Amino acid sequence: MNSTRRLVVANGPNLNLLGTREPEIYGRTTLAEIQAMVDARAAELGWSVSFFQTNHEGELIDRLQREGPGALGIVINPAAFTHYSYALMDCLRAIRVPIVEVHISNLFARAGAFRQQSVTAPAAAGIISGLGPHGYLLAMEYLNAVDE
Amino acid sequence: MNSTRRLVVANGPNLNLLGTREPEIYGRTTLAEIQAMVDARAAELGWSVSFFQTNHEGELIDRLQREGPGALGIVINPAAFTHYSYALMDCLRAIRVPIVEVHISNLFARAGAFRQQSVTAPAAAGIISGLGPHGYLLAMEYLNAVDE
Amino acid sequence: MNSTRRLVVANGPNLNLLGTREPEIYGRTTLAEIQAMVDARAAELGWSVSFFQTNHEGELIDRLQREGPGALGIVINPAAFTHYSYALMDCLRAIRVPIVEVHISNLFARAGAFRQQSVTAPAAAGIISGLGPHGYLLAMEYLNAVDE
Amino acid sequence: MNSTRRLVVANGPNLNLLGTREPEIYGRTTLAEIQAMVDARAAELGWSVSFFQTNHEGELIDRLQREGPGALGIVINPAAFTHYSYALMDCLRAIRVPIVEVHISNLFARAGAFRQQSVTAPAAAGIISGLGPHGYLLAMEYLNAVDE
Amino acid sequence: MNSTRRLVVANGPNLNLLGTREPEIYGRTTLAEIQAMVDARAAELGWSVSFFQTNHEGELIDRLQREGPGALGIVINPAAFTHYSYALMDCLRAIRVPIVEVHISNLFARAGAFRQQSVTAPAAAGIISGLGPHGYLLAMEYLNAVDE
Amino acid sequence: MNSTRRLVVANGPNLNLLGTREPEIYGRTTLAEIQAMVDARAAELGWSVSFFQTNHEGELIDRLQREGPGALGIVINPAAFTHYSYALMDCLRAIRVPIVEVHISNLFARAGAFRQQSVTAPAAAGIISGLGPHGYLLAMEYLNAVDE
Amino acid sequence: MNSTRRLVVANGPNLNLLGTREPEIYGRTTLAEIQAMVDARAAELGWSVSFFQTNHEGELIDRLQREGPGALGIVINPAAFTHYSYALMDCLRAIRVPIVEVHISNLFARAGAFRQQSVTAPAAAGIISGLGPHGYLLAMEYLNAVDE
Amino acid sequence: MNSTRRLVVANGPNLNLLGTREPEIYGRTTLAEIQAMVDARAAELGWSVSFFQTNHEGELIDRLQREGPGALGIVINPAAFTHYSYALMDCLRAIRVPIVEVHISNLFARAGAFRQQSVTAPAAAGIISGLGPHGYLLAMEYLNAVDE
Amino acid sequence: MNSTRRLVVANGPNLNLLGTREPEIYGRTTLAEIQAMVDARAAELGWSVSFFQTNHEGELIDRLQREGPGALGIVINPAAFTHYSYALMDCLRAIRVPIVEVHISNLFARAGAFRQQSVTAPAAAGIISGLGPHGYLLAMEYLNAVDE
Amino acid sequence: MNSTRRLVVANGPNLNLLGTREPEIYGRTTLAEIQAMVDARAAELGWSVSFFQTNHEGELIDRLQREGPGALGIVINPAAFTHYSYALMDCLRAIRVPIVEVHISNLFARAGAFRQQSVTAPAAAGIISGLGPHGYLLAMEYLNAVDE
Amino acid sequence: MNSTRRLVVANGPNLNLLGTREPEIYGRTTLAEIQAMVDARAAELGWSVSFFQTNHEGELIDRLQREGPGALGIVINPAAFTHYSYALMDCLRAIRVPIVEVHISNLFARAGAFRQQSVTAPAAAGIISGLGPHGYLLAMEYLNAVDE
Amino acid sequence: MNSTRRLVVANGPNLNLLGTREPEIYGRTTLAEIQAMVDARAAELGWSVSFFQTNHEGELIDRLQREGPGALGIVINPAAFTHYSYALMDCLRAIRVPIVEVHISNLFARAGAFRQQSVTAPAAAGIISGLGPHGYLLAMEYLNAVDE
Repeated sequence: MNSTRRLVVANGPNLNLLGTREPEIYGRTTLAEIQAMVDARAAELGWSVSFFQTNHEGELIDRLQREGPGALGIVINPAAFTHYSYALMDCLRAIRVPIVEVHISNLFARAGAFRQQSVTAPAAAGIISGLGPHGYLLAMEYLNAVDE
Repeated sequence: MNSTRRLVVANGPNLNLLGTREPEIYGRTTLAEIQAMVDARAAELGWSVSFFQTNHEGELIDRLQREGPGALGIVINPAAFTHYSYALMDCLRAIRVPIVEVHISNLFARAGAFRQQSVTAPAAAGIISGLGPHGYLLAMEYLNAVDE
Repeated sequence: MNSTRRLVVANGPNLNLLGTREPEIYGRTTLAEIQAMVDARAAELGWSVSFFQTNHEGELIDRLQREGPGALGIVINPAAFTHYSYALMDCLRAIRVPIVEVHISNLFARAGAFRQQSVTAPAAAGIISGLGPHGYLLAMEYLNAVDE
Repeated sequence: MNSTRRLVVANGPNLNLLGTREPEIYGRTTLAEIQAMVDARAAELGWSVSFFQTNHEGELIDRLQREGPGALGIVINPAAFTHYSYALMDCLRAIRVPIVEVHISNLFARAGAFRQQSVTAPAAAGIISGLGPHGYLLAMEYLNAVDE
Repeated sequence: MNSTRRLVVANGPNLNLLGTREPEIYGRTTLAEIQAMVDARAAELGWSVSFFQTNHEGELIDRLQREGPGALGIVINPAAFTHYSYALMDCLRAIRVPIVEVHISNLFARAGAFRQQSVTAPAAAGIISGLGPHGYLLAMEYLNAVDE
Repeated sequence: MNSTRRLVVANGPNLNLLGTREPEIYGRTTLAEIQAMVDARAAELGWSVSFFQTNHEGELIDRLQREGPGALGIVINPAAFTHYSYALMDCLRAIRVPIVEVHISNLFARAGAFRQQSVTAPAAAGIISGLGPHGYLLAMEYLNAVDE
Repeated sequence: MNSTRRLVVANGPNLNLLGTREPEIYGRTTLAEIQAMVDARAAELGWSVSFFQTNHEGELIDRLQREGPGALGIVINPAAFTHYSYALMDCLRAIRVPIVEVHISNLFARAGAFRQQSVTAPAAAGIISGLGPHGYLLAMEYLNAVDE
Repeated sequence: MNSTRRLVVANGPNLNLLGTREPEIYGRTTLAEIQAMVDARAAELGWSVSFFQTNHEGELIDRLQREGPGALGIVINPAAFTHYSYALMDCLRAIRVPIVEVHISNLFARAGAFRQQSVTAPAAAGIISGLGPHGYLLAMEYLNAVDE
Repeated sequence: MNSTRRLVVANGPNLNLLGTREPEIYGRTTLAEIQAMVDARAAELGWSVSFFQTNHEGELIDRLQREGPGALGIVINPAAFTHYSYALMDCLRAIRVPIVEVHISNLFARAGAFRQQSVTAPAAAGIISGLGPHGYLLAMEYLNAVDE
Repeated sequence: MNSTRRLVVANGPNLNLLGTREPEIYGRTTLAEIQAMVDARAAELGWSVSFFQTNHEGELIDRLQREGPGALGIVINPAAFTHYSYALMDCLRAIRVPIVEVHISNLFARAGAFRQQSVTAPAAAGIISGLGPHGYLLAMEYLNAVDE
Repeated sequence: MNSTRRLVVANGPNLNLLGTREPEIYGRTTLAEIQAMVDARAAELGWSVSFFQTNHEGELIDRLQREGPGALGIVINPAAFTHYSYALMDCLRAIRVPIVEVHISNLFARAGAFRQQSVTAPAAAGIISGLGPHGYLLAMEYLNAVDE
Repeated sequence: MNSTRRLVVANGPNLNLLGTREPEIYGRTTLAEIQAMVDARAAELGWSVSFFQTNHEGELIDRLQREGPGALGIVINPAAFTHYSYALMDCLRAIRVPIVEVHISNLFARAGAFRQQSVTAPAAAGIISGLGPHGYLLAMEYLNAVDE
């Protein structure tokens, strides 16, 4: 039967380079390692996972429109799109499932007022920022807690 | 003979969700219904119509570059791209046919100064905002009037 | 019987000079010519028209307060009042009929951030800007469409 | 003999609509009702009252210039002029009698930084804002208290 | 029986110096004199009064949390806290009794945009500013008028 | 014959109070005295003069529209309208005669960035500010010099 | 032996009202209920907990200076202090243990740019915002994960 | 005897290029021609003139400090120094003779808010801007009028 | 053997229209002509060249991620992405080869503060702007000079 | 007899951590060491010293109100309160003895415009910033010099 | 014969310290070494060179006015003058030969919005920034290319 | 032998007028008197002094470049250069001796945000502002204390 709960984990531009790009800021954990952590925890919870990364704003929106509705929740790390993609924000706002925005590093500790802002976060339930790869797992715990 | 006048109607990100996304703001008319209205009026005017929607900024530009030149005019609803896509603005500026920017809702009635601005509108002849799906048809009337 | 539908068309300061003032921006059509166009279309629709122009903010408000209620709609070109007349905005907000704000030229293509803003537009259903004298007629088509 | 103390109560644009315009913000008391309250209290105090409303900035200034000097004080609700009429501010500054600026609603609770500012208030002794029609009567008590 | 109506009058930092600190701005009436005026008027109205002053933001909040609920209303002069104490604003917002913010001097006549703003006022019904010690008494009249 | 050259001298709100309003800023010369100075110099130059003052923005525009065209030049002291009357600015821009904006006091020495700006001055040939009543006469000398 | 790991959970002003203050924003869970949840989870982890709330900025700093050093980590909800307490920020910066800033509601979804900023967050490892009372527990999971 | 009245006319950077630099903005009159005009008028008035131009801010200040005191007045065209030379402003402020700041072109008609401001003008009696080379002569008339 | 040095030349949106779009700003050289110039110079230097243009931000990032590492350097003209693509900036920052940002026109001579800024340039070694198609060749000379 | 001159040295939040908190910015001298230096110099001058530190804004104000009047002067290091405590500023303004504001580090060398500002300094005679613990002693020398 | 082409290379304040001042930002090449590089390349091109450095804004303008006209082009590194010398900008604008502005370091990578701006660059053909001493040579290649 | 320690005391524009210019702000002590005070204290310390004043930014930089290196320290009062001379700031940054910036008046007590800022101070160790001529001597005490 298709009663399996499904989680969407969406990753924005350049996150495929995680673990190699500016590791002093973003750490040394790769996106594949994060995916493995997510998959392991999802298995415990009996969830299926759609985990993807893209550098294309349009593709991110296409997939979220397609996979978001009906999911138990969305974990999204919009990466640089955080700061200017009103299109992504509109997309998230249109999906009626719980959404958690995750950032590896601490938005508020960044230099530059612009880099501290998130135009997408108002469309999410909340945000976890600066707690490294743990952020993904904590977001899953939240979604599990609010999932009835 | 190929003397049929051609209209381009371009729709930006998330407009495929029109009628379902935040209907209290954007109304309950779907994009398919708008397309039907546009097609009906175009038939009366003897025009062919290229009507499309995309969530991809790049695809929007590709198509406008390809289909814009030679058209009798362009009706564009840039949706969220309105507020930041300087690439779309540059694209519109390069096309020498009449362009009308259409918004379903009233830009000026939105909260947030940023959401009231249009970086693309300076590249259009003008803007119709807040008049709902009628905006598309009014834009067509304008293009008809200036089409010699 | 007095069942004739009534349209109000209000024009703000210096629009009596239309067609002569900076024609490279505002075109060569005079306000009298626009009035004739409006009257002709109104006759087709079976509407009466109250068309006026004034350089006085107070007079504009007085007349809108008097003539607005009960009209089928208002077409208003606030001209320079667009940018600072909060009194006009309050007046429009108090009148419960459909209102369309019209500008001959494209607000968004103007130099100066201040000149791109409309403090009155939030009180209207929407705005038509940059489509020349056609804007008046398009506004009428909109009012006709929403008039039940 | 003409020793009766005289009070000026001036009301700005659209206040003639009070009680009907956006009652959820401005309440349901009409300006006529406020005038009656003011008159009643003035009678107790032995004052004559010049109470007027106008939508014309120029008329407001004309009357204040004419009636302000020699009055025991001025109660003024500048309505929308509050936010931009430097001409009114200059006028108030030139009149050497106690002035209280009254607003029905709470300036500071309004959305929009511009709508929270008063360019006229620096020319008054002080401001009463948000206390509804009571504001007029409280202003009278103040003027009575400082009237020697 | 404990049916006596109770009024809270709260005064923020440095108001204990009133009458001596910059008397050209704040006048020569001391806080003790204001308290006496308040007490006298409260006696006429049959109210008890809790009148206090503190330089401690935390203490101000503690007392308002404790004494605010159940009072007939609060008169608060937040003094310098007006400009930055979001904690005080949150506190006021949580108390469901009528609140009037009072300032001895005219906020809008001050130099410096920051000193003209009140972060606490949006949590009050309204504000009386610039009317000197009278402001306290006028606030009491307002509370009496709205007290049913 | 009607070959007399005609000068328009327009004065904005509250200038009828000149000489009495804040004389420490605006001096003690009345507007009537300025008019006499202007008339005397005009007589020497063989000019007729239309000198007026109004507190009404609309009336100022009406008269400038009527009297400006065909005049040898306009001397205008917009007073407070300087800072916000885009309607006056549009009016001046439409009149194709030399215009000099005059201010009694020094715009740039005023407190408040807003009070240092002139939205009308871009529509004039230039500005004379801070030179007191002399400014009117100097403006006349300029108009005489450029009058061919 | 004193090898028990110790957690500090600090709560800022007005959080003692949690569950009653604006429940549409902050929910209906009380601070006592959150404390119970925290205690339960700490018991599982074998931690002792110092959980406190205060309306006093100074007291918050005093306690953090005293209890922070040597703790396994700090969970802090600075409430309104988030937006202006540079003193709290300096205090957090001086303590060399992992710190997580928690907010019940979504900072980025608030109206007002100021209310979206956190001056304290740069001194924390990261922030969890908008996930309700779950935020406290998620912060504990994070501290547990990084605790070696 | 040394009773001759002395005028200082100071010209800032690049004014030696006047008449050749951007003549569409600054006209075709050279600085030598302006000097001749000034000298001719000064001869009529019986004044001696110290007329100079320099590209050096320091030299401009040195000369003004040396020649300003005791002069009947200063006419200064600070050119680009207008916009940033606080040193020149301090210098002018220290000299107790009448000063008129002159600009060939209209400051307020320039693009760029920065180019519309004058940091030196607050130290002058007033400013003449946009009236071309006439500005120098008008400034002399002013100085003559106020010279007792 | 594959020891050939490789150059990446990336071109952003609408640059395929170069030579036709607004030639008064961007000149009449087409992108194909620039490619030919680049190829010719690369041949002299013994380099291979990957030269491409795309209107898609995501594709630009995909290709730079794929082709950037191992190249001798990157010449990039981000066109409109310059002003808002933080995703492109992050991508460039992650690639550890010399990067030169090239613009055909002079960024600093553009109207609009926004259009003068580059969010991508901080991730490059430097920028060449306003030197037309020469910019591409000069960037190559720079890369040749620093290539060891 | 009580003719001993008395000095107040007040220290704001977190200064009790001096010498340990971010020593690369604030150095390694502890507050106790500074107190010893101050005491030693005071002994030479024959002054008594009231030296204290507090994390509580209210307590700082209480003590300054109590101890400030009658002192020969105040040396105050407001630490983080520098940037937002208008209450402290009001307090200092009310005390009529010489006040010197001291900062260990250089305000102007800090990142963040906000951290470079002092809202308290306008209430002091002057400021010494960036000269380390020497600042306290230099402030004492100043007070000694102006003490008559 | 005097047919030799002449190049002007102008260097602004503190560039005489190049190679020693903050070498981590500006590198270790001295200005003398750059001059040698420029001279060597000029010799190949058959150009004479006027190469100079000055800390004086006025002297820089004097020399550019004298040597600029008739030169084949100007290479200018305005150093700190870049950010505020409108006088230099006016000077460059008046010289009708090709101008390239060169900066050793990357303007856009600097902290502080002000330090990223160039007020002089709009007067140049373009800018080369961040490419170290190579910038001078690349500017020469550009001038050679456009020199007919 | 030349082992004498050398102090540089540099004074910016218009400080030669000290004691006469706006004495209500800057006091009545002349620069010669300050020099005498500095010389007297230097004699006690066994230092030689290079004390100078100039109105020329370039000369100030020339001398600092020449005399700064090798000095025991620099005391500089940049006067108006404080607010805009990035060239002076670069110069100070390049000199590796202790520098103290001194201002006679209190920067933070000045009207105008611009006049409160120092662009040069970040290049100094610290700043002494508002302590009058004492500031010079206190700066010397600091330099003596840090001079090893």
